[in-house]
Amino acid sequence: MGITRRKAMTIAGVGVAGIAGAAAGATAVLAADSEPTVPVSAASGAVPFHGDHQAGIITPAQDRLHFVAFDVVTKDRDRLVSMLQDWTAAAARMTQGQDAGTIGAVNGIPEAPPDDTGEALDLPPAGLTLTVGFGPTLFRDASGVDRFGIADKRPAALADLPKFPADALQPEISGGDLCVQACANDPQVAVHAIRNLARIGMGVVSVRWSQLGFGRTSSTSRDQVTPRNLFGFKDGTANLKAEDTALLDEHLWVRAGDGASWMDGGSYLVARKIRMTIETWDRTSLGEQEEIVGRAKGTGAPLGQQDEFDELDFTLKGPDGEPAIGEVAHVKLAHHSQNGGARILRRGYNFVDGSDGLGRLNAGLFFISFQRDAHKQFVPIQLQLARHDVMNEYIRHVSSALFACPPGVEDGGDYWGRALFG
Amino acid sequence: MGITRRKAMTIAGVGVAGIAGAAAGATAVLAADSEPTVPVSAASGAVPFHGDHQAGIITPAQDRLHFVAFDVVTKDRDRLVSMLQDWTAAAARMTQGQDAGTIGAVNGIPEAPPDDTGEALDLPPAGLTLTVGFGPTLFRDASGVDRFGIADKRPAALADLPKFPADALQPEISGGDLCVQACANDPQVAVHAIRNLARIGMGVVSVRWSQLGFGRTSSTSRDQVTPRNLFGFKDGTANLKAEDTALLDEHLWVRAGDGASWMDGGSYLVARKIRMTIETWDRTSLGEQEEIVGRAKGTGAPLGQQDEFDELDFTLKGPDGEPAIGEVAHVKLAHHSQNGGARILRRGYNFVDGSDGLGRLNAGLFFISFQRDAHKQFVPIQLQLARHDVMNEYIRHVSSALFACPPGVEDGGDYWGRALFG
Repeated sequence: MGITRRKAMTIAGVGVAGIAGAAAGATAVLAADSEPTVPVSAASGAVPFHGDHQAGIITPAQDRLHFVAFDVVTKDRDRLVSMLQDWTAAAARMTQGQDAGTIGAVNGIPEAPPDDTGEALDLPPAGLTLTVGFGPTLFRDASGVDRFGIADKRPAALADLPKFPADALQPEISGGDLCVQACANDPQVAVHAIRNLARIGMGVVSVRWSQLGFGRTSSTSRDQVTPRNLFGFKDGTANLKAEDTALLDEHLWVRAGDGASWMDGGSYLVARKIRMTIETWDRTSLGEQEEIVGRAKGTGAPLGQQDEFDELDFTLKGPDGEPAIGEVAHVKLAHHSQNGGARILRRGYNFVDGSDGLGRLNAGLFFISFQRDAHKQFVPIQLQLARHDVMNEYIRHVSSALFACPPGVEDGGDYWGRALFG
Repeated sequence: MGITRRKAMTIAGVGVAGIAGAAAGATAVLAADSEPTVPVSAASGAVPFHGDHQAGIITPAQDRLHFVAFDVVTKDRDRLVSMLQDWTAAAARMTQGQDAGTIGAVNGIPEAPPDDTGEALDLPPAGLTLTVGFGPTLFRDASGVDRFGIADKRPAALADLPKFPADALQPEISGGDLCVQACANDPQVAVHAIRNLARIGMGVVSVRWSQLGFGRTSSTSRDQVTPRNLFGFKDGTANLKAEDTALLDEHLWVRAGDGASWMDGGSYLVARKIRMTIETWDRTSLGEQEEIVGRAKGTGAPLGQQDEFDELDFTLKGPDGEPAIGEVAHVKLAHHSQNGGARILRRGYNFVDGSDGLGRLNAGLFFISFQRDAHKQFVPIQLQLARHDVMNEYIRHVSSALFACPPGVEDGGDYWGRALFG
């Protein structure tokens, strides 16, 4: 073909990989041969693809997202498995800044389409991670049919999420048989990866829905600055972080004995598209916004406290003798102390999808969380919020999906879903 | 309020402003106090707001776009002018990395909403430019009513664009009374700016449509690397560039005698949302793709030549004795030699707006061009393409808009549209 995506851009003297690298990278000196006016940052390096867990979960949250849910359109188990093998090989290449690679039989023939779509040819790895998940309908369709002979391997934790009060879910952007979460620091790199996986999967999968996100709304490492969501508040301050190994073992990673053993070392992904009526929020006073959230807008500190990272203290009283953080403040309702100890790792993104036809931006939060069991963690928290959160006046959940993300793949012969299909 | 968007992030020893600054900035050493894992690049500086021409036209194309078209919902000329003054003040602040500022009478009152929505509080200017334009319908509505007493100032060049063959325009994402093009190297900064202008304009304007773009598809300076569009090809190689002063005077900037004098120093903006059926394109062979475009996919060189920036030579023959660049190759049809000398400055972006409900990504190019007279430049080129371009098998124009972008504003008292309304 003659076209090969350029190898990882060199950043002088810095190995940008994983958590430590990403933190170190921020003080990197840009290489002298870096190109003018293309944004080159320390976030352009590669994240390792292979490992015990999939990348893209505790990887320091990249700043851009392309999330896609696929329907499987074949009934042929072998074709599905073959595609998952091809996907794994392509993902291993693309996350390291290479092209999607030679997949299937048609390549190498002159009249055949290129091996790679090309739009990321000149771009660095940009911290790309690709994280795969299996939806409930992959195991058994709506009529109860065992589609690929894996129905008995469906984990109890992959039962459909309940309907929550005020849910306004649109089926066409909910659910899916498979998902891939592409995160990167350059959206063109994330889009390129999803597009090439869709291309490789042609005839086996079909895009059900997809979502771009442009600004991370949480931190997953203590080395990251807390970003802001479209309500203008810092988001993710009290998130589970990569450094909290014991908490991750307790709340994030599926362990032996939890259920289906093919999920050991994996995690469950919940995606919820949350429309925010930002125009109404923007007419709300600062005091009311802070009361609803339970934190100061500027500093991110819990109300009645000083610093962003002060532990939430629900016993503190304000000058009026009332609790500084109200009973139904968002941070209190979502706090593990109010939900039987349940914690989740959030990894969501801001979105603006044009306008809504009513004179407003179609904006909001594409919520993603990872947890050991969504029914024991996400569900109780979301039930609290759906019932009591005053923020509900300004938001609407319009999509929902649950996926089982298997553990990481090993170098050499392993593939996404091997323990499930192998 | 106590909340003020942080002043422009300091990049040690480098003034990143305008063309020269942006080019110089790429080799900057990141400041030691820059924050970990937030992508900090030389593209984080501020572009000057004031000047003879509006920024965001020949400014080296930033990598992210939020474009919005507004309907004016008031009949009150004074309110419209007052909003344009408020917008100008807010734009001058936000492009320099400050908050949207204290606008109108409600601010400073404790129960009032914040002066700024907050989501860009911790972010640098990120090269933000805000470029305003006035649509045909601002002057006279569909019934011919002179809405704001400016109908006699409508330039002939602002006549509606003709319908082109195969146009599949959706009225709800076409046209508009006003537009603002926000370009930045951080999408959160671009979104923040548009959102705050919409907020300031509440009751005067309403969002008609809006579009996010994630990767620039042209260069507007010789210091920029040519990016790639979603067909995987380099795009913008032969674009008008900021350095071509004589060509800009001839093709880009409206000059005295062209028509309405309030547009002297301004330019006309054409926006076309072009859906690409990338799935079909991706099944086309490399040879056919290159024949359609007229350039090599890898290097971007004209067919039959070596380097990307080789001048297109339509006399060259291939080994078969046929012209190396075919008669209906895209680059030939669009070339000024085939269109009476017409040139335009392109400034478009890639987009992916979820999926199309048919198993495909809703992807494409949000085309933007600037020119001295769209009817004499964009129209003949687009007519050629609409009639003869084989690429039409893979694209569909789904929206269209034309706006008159007035000249730049001077520091102190000037505002967007002063020469039109003053």
